[in-house]
Amino acid sequence: MIDSTEHKKNSSIIMTSRIRLARNIAGKRFANSASPDELANIYDICFNALSKARQFKGGECVKMSEISEFGRAMLIEDKLASRELPAGSPASGVFYSADYSLSAMINEEDHLRVQALGVKQCLKSLWRKLNATDDAIEKNIEYAYSDDFGYLTACPTNVGTGMRASLMMHLPALALTEQMEKIARGLNQLGMVVRGADGEGSDSYGAFFQISNQQTLGMSEDDIIKKIIKFGEKVCEFEINARLKLWQDSPIILQDKISRAVAILKNCRLIDTAEAMEHLSTLRLCADMGLMQDATYAINMIDEVMLDIKPAHIQRKFNIREIDSQERDKVRASYLNSVVKALPKLKIK
Amino acid sequence: MIDSTEHKKNSSIIMTSRIRLARNIAGKRFANSASPDELANIYDICFNALSKARQFKGGECVKMSEISEFGRAMLIEDKLASRELPAGSPASGVFYSADYSLSAMINEEDHLRVQALGVKQCLKSLWRKLNATDDAIEKNIEYAYSDDFGYLTACPTNVGTGMRASLMMHLPALALTEQMEKIARGLNQLGMVVRGADGEGSDSYGAFFQISNQQTLGMSEDDIIKKIIKFGEKVCEFEINARLKLWQDSPIILQDKISRAVAILKNCRLIDTAEAMEHLSTLRLCADMGLMQDATYAINMIDEVMLDIKPAHIQRKFNIREIDSQERDKVRASYLNSVVKALPKLKIK
Repeated sequence: MIDSTEHKKNSSIIMTSRIRLARNIAGKRFANSASPDELANIYDICFNALSKARQFKGGECVKMSEISEFGRAMLIEDKLASRELPAGSPASGVFYSADYSLSAMINEEDHLRVQALGVKQCLKSLWRKLNATDDAIEKNIEYAYSDDFGYLTACPTNVGTGMRASLMMHLPALALTEQMEKIARGLNQLGMVVRGADGEGSDSYGAFFQISNQQTLGMSEDDIIKKIIKFGEKVCEFEINARLKLWQDSPIILQDKISRAVAILKNCRLIDTAEAMEHLSTLRLCADMGLMQDATYAINMIDEVMLDIKPAHIQRKFNIREIDSQERDKVRASYLNSVVKALPKLKIK
Repeated sequence: MIDSTEHKKNSSIIMTSRIRLARNIAGKRFANSASPDELANIYDICFNALSKARQFKGGECVKMSEISEFGRAMLIEDKLASRELPAGSPASGVFYSADYSLSAMINEEDHLRVQALGVKQCLKSLWRKLNATDDAIEKNIEYAYSDDFGYLTACPTNVGTGMRASLMMHLPALALTEQMEKIARGLNQLGMVVRGADGEGSDSYGAFFQISNQQTLGMSEDDIIKKIIKFGEKVCEFEINARLKLWQDSPIILQDKISRAVAILKNCRLIDTAEAMEHLSTLRLCADMGLMQDATYAINMIDEVMLDIKPAHIQRKFNIREIDSQERDKVRASYLNSVVKALPKLKIK
């Protein structure tokens, strides 16, 4: 039923790629020790430089003090802001391009965190784009830079390139067979970090993991990216092998999971984000293994739904004013009931 | 949708009643300190007395040394033997009437443990039956008895009447609203014990609880029974109120549980006993609340299924030779898939 070579070629294990650069303005105190006036000045300098960068043309900028809790939640779910970007601050904000593929946080941990985001494995092209953006910004900002260390950052772990590149990976078979801990330990020893889907300290519900570089010092940007691509491919291989072995050894375990996921998503009346992600993850695996018709269409649909059901997104989609988590769980359930009925048919009984 | 008075009258919250008497032979050492020869002699005396009791006429007797592990598991699931009845012992066994309503364990903790079992709340009639059986046995055994203490037993907690009477209750609303711990504590202070469905130390999956008397000394048998009936009725009242409140306050929580239970039981490919009991418990609640058509028929069917799916019973029903738990989970799932399709229709959408 599953062709190994075919599966490797077409698999959607790597969902998205992301690179961010940490940058600070020369001669200014880091955000954590700057006064409100200094922060305001830093904000203005960054805003000015970002506005003038061609890559951000047509983009938008929001100050954290100007948006509601809901607006902040949307930015976080869209991965444009981190939870650490100070809520309500008049000197912190986000600048983002119209398609969200390029964004910058102002006065998070560093004065500037510029980020490029793309689907599948696209780190090399992201780096070209981000590097050009960085150059454009640098025309109007003198970065804090040391000839010995490279870019200076608020936290020593980012000093050097200031780069963190990552792949968001869907690893349900490795999670199900409890191999993730071992793999994370191994990657750690090789200078890589494995995290849950929502970054540092987050749970890994739905078996979505982010793998990124630990090292920012003593390696060029190109080498960091090459390393991540290499290990990303390796992890894909592990995941594919785990899928094939699972299917070969005990297809019933997978059939049970898939059958339950469909049944629950079709019939629940209340469901929270974490549980919904778990079941959607199972259906994504099912499609990616060729056990669902129109696999590519199904995966794109599932990926969209996984964003749609997040707390702020579901609230916006169905125009729920009050933030009542039971009401949200109800609307999410009803939305998923209909979405799953519209998914392509399963190829298994 | 639910009529409070109607619900109280017809509810199936009390599932079964049970009374057991602990008895020992005068002048013989307790089972835990008797030699093999003494145990064999005790077995013979008990066997002889039980054989002659009219109430056991047509019954069967099995020695633990004569049955397989599977046979022992069947006895335990049918509540004819306890886990403590020594497996493989040639001097321990079970005598049971053809309909299982009357049974006796020989050389468990005490020389004799005679038990009567019936459906719903029927403690008074059970006591009449058991008392007559006890008298019949006593014609051929001189019981260890003290004028000061009453019947003497291996464990001091049973001295006196040697009676433990209990009601098996289905309390899903109290469990769901997390009131069981408080109720158990309260009953404890009043000399009652609350246990999981499978007796001492067992988990309470499916929200089945057994309530019984703690005290065996200083109270007559009739008073013990009256007390249990009184508290059983009280707990029923609490459960019914919890059901009505749940349905009034958040029907969606119940609807979600019911809808998921049906979906999972219909679609799972593997399921263990504990999970199956949880979902069947939800459907039993649904029927008992009048949310399913032909409620009485549905409840009887569910009660039968709950016994059918236990590990040994499912194995016998589908003639599975090997004891492979995945195979059992698979057969159980397939059985439940069809059973749930045959249940009366839900009255809720």
